[in-house]
Amino acid sequence: MSLAATPPTPYFAVIFTSIRAEGDEGYGEMAAHVLELARQQPGFLGFESARQEIGISVSYWSSLEAIAAWKQNAFHREAQKRAQDWYASFRVRVCRVEKEYGERR
Amino acid sequence: MSLAATPPTPYFAVIFTSIRAEGDEGYGEMAAHVLELARQQPGFLGFESARQEIGISVSYWSSLEAIAAWKQNAFHREAQKRAQDWYASFRVRVCRVEKEYGERR
Repeated sequence: MSLAATPPTPYFAVIFTSIRAEGDEGYGEMAAHVLELARQQPGFLGFESARQEIGISVSYWSSLEAIAAWKQNAFHREAQKRAQDWYASFRVRVCRVEKEYGERR
Repeated sequence: MSLAATPPTPYFAVIFTSIRAEGDEGYGEMAAHVLELARQQPGFLGFESARQEIGISVSYWSSLEAIAAWKQNAFHREAQKRAQDWYASFRVRVCRVEKEYGERR
């Protein structure tokens, strides 16, 4: 995984933070498929993810409409319904990215 | 580490994503001290972090002014100057959090 190469601001981000429940319960397979589908959505700009004690996944999007459309994706909706099987707790934060800087080498 | 307990939206987030350079070079000690100082800053609301292939740290703030003041903190500025010793690449994204939802159990 590399850092997401996002366009000039403004664009949007969804920060998904979570603590996993015990057991896999099909989680690994679902997560891979959800990401594969997200990458195919209109307005998808990039994805970054890491997990230690907590998991943080950030997806980047061109607009709030693109985020809303992805939330309504049929497979994604099925996955959302199973959240209680996979997560002890989770938070979703929808953000407008105002400014970006950094260094790539 | 638990998920950050943030107030009602809107508030602000800084998403810091990075790929580490080889060697510690004082990184661990600096990172712990930077976080300790951030927690004491006015407007600091919470912090979440995880690292695998990439590192993702998200800090939450009450305003853009609080973020700007933290960026100017003397020790934090010294740490920023040493970024090239610690990171192969990094991105900083300053965001306005528009919406938050989720479940805690």
